[in-house]
Amino acid sequence: MENKIIVTIGRQFGSGGREIGQKLAEILGIAYYDKELMAMAAKDSGLCEEFFEKADERVSGNLSYAFSLGYSYMGAYAPFNDILSNDGLFKLQSDTIRSLAEKQSCVMVGRCADYILRNEPSCISVFIHNTAENRINRIMEYDKVTEQEAKDRMASIDKSRSSYYNYYTNKAWGVASSYNLSIDASMLGIDDTVLFIKDFVMRRMEILSHQ
Amino acid sequence: MENKIIVTIGRQFGSGGREIGQKLAEILGIAYYDKELMAMAAKDSGLCEEFFEKADERVSGNLSYAFSLGYSYMGAYAPFNDILSNDGLFKLQSDTIRSLAEKQSCVMVGRCADYILRNEPSCISVFIHNTAENRINRIMEYDKVTEQEAKDRMASIDKSRSSYYNYYTNKAWGVASSYNLSIDASMLGIDDTVLFIKDFVMRRMEILSHQ
Repeated sequence: MENKIIVTIGRQFGSGGREIGQKLAEILGIAYYDKELMAMAAKDSGLCEEFFEKADERVSGNLSYAFSLGYSYMGAYAPFNDILSNDGLFKLQSDTIRSLAEKQSCVMVGRCADYILRNEPSCISVFIHNTAENRINRIMEYDKVTEQEAKDRMASIDKSRSSYYNYYTNKAWGVASSYNLSIDASMLGIDDTVLFIKDFVMRRMEILSHQ
Repeated sequence: MENKIIVTIGRQFGSGGREIGQKLAEILGIAYYDKELMAMAAKDSGLCEEFFEKADERVSGNLSYAFSLGYSYMGAYAPFNDILSNDGLFKLQSDTIRSLAEKQSCVMVGRCADYILRNEPSCISVFIHNTAENRINRIMEYDKVTEQEAKDRMASIDKSRSSYYNYYTNKAWGVASSYNLSIDASMLGIDDTVLFIKDFVMRRMEILSHQ
């Protein structure tokens, strides 16, 4: 693609948002970042990746606990206490997201990327949701859990993501007006939803190319 | 169109949702209902249209006040007190919405049509939102009001619509998962948003035709 485009994807747990993001990046021929963002933020900061994993999309990960388990700090000069707070890790991850978005077109899943890149004109924010039935079935299939466990995970992970998003942004997670486009993936299925979002991206790029 | 399709449109005040609904109905070649739903519900029920207008998308319209102004009751047998409650008017309007949806393809704007038709497989629910700036400009232009008046209307009418929707449905107004598709109309502009929704409708109809 000639012009840069960043697609951020927020998603209900089990909605298919991750798969849609991956397939969208593939057909657009651009990079895809999800959990990779943590590894890159860790590398950029000199902190162990496990710190980021513990805090991933949580407002209050138990970092002192993670630290007590012996995850090592590899940086040399950064102020220790500031970095080990979740706010510190959010800031480091935000720096990585901004730096990646400056360099290239990509799809980024979760981690408030839509908010972090809110002033980037080439950014399109998408939210994926699905029926409870489809989500439970996906979670049971992918995580190999019972129906009740899938329901519990669905509720608790959505709650985590929502708290994280609402804490770090001035918007509300899952509310239509927080995103440019929100889609119920049950309507067209995963593959057609990908094509439909691609169409939105192409239309938007056409408009941006005339501005 | 061969198969029946119902598109319901929820919208932020000033977002362009009404215009998008009208244009969508036009290019799909199907009927469009917005305030017309009130006139039809009035006709079906034998009540004056003004009753419905007073209660339109409000949880607590002052119907006894409307009645005191002399709006006449034209029905013969319906239980008076039940009909004159907002719940009674909601029920009458719901009957009209269900009856219209049974007969033909159409676009319906507001009035919880998405919830009333939730068990109708051929129903697609859309929510239109827009940037605050665009909404204020549209309200100033269409309603011939000052910027402050536009801001006040925007806040109070959205509050009304939200209360009405949250009271009469088990969903939350403006929340992405309450609708199949939510779009920020500022991204593509009104006309391209219409074409984009049309594409969603055509893709969905294609899927339904194979079921």
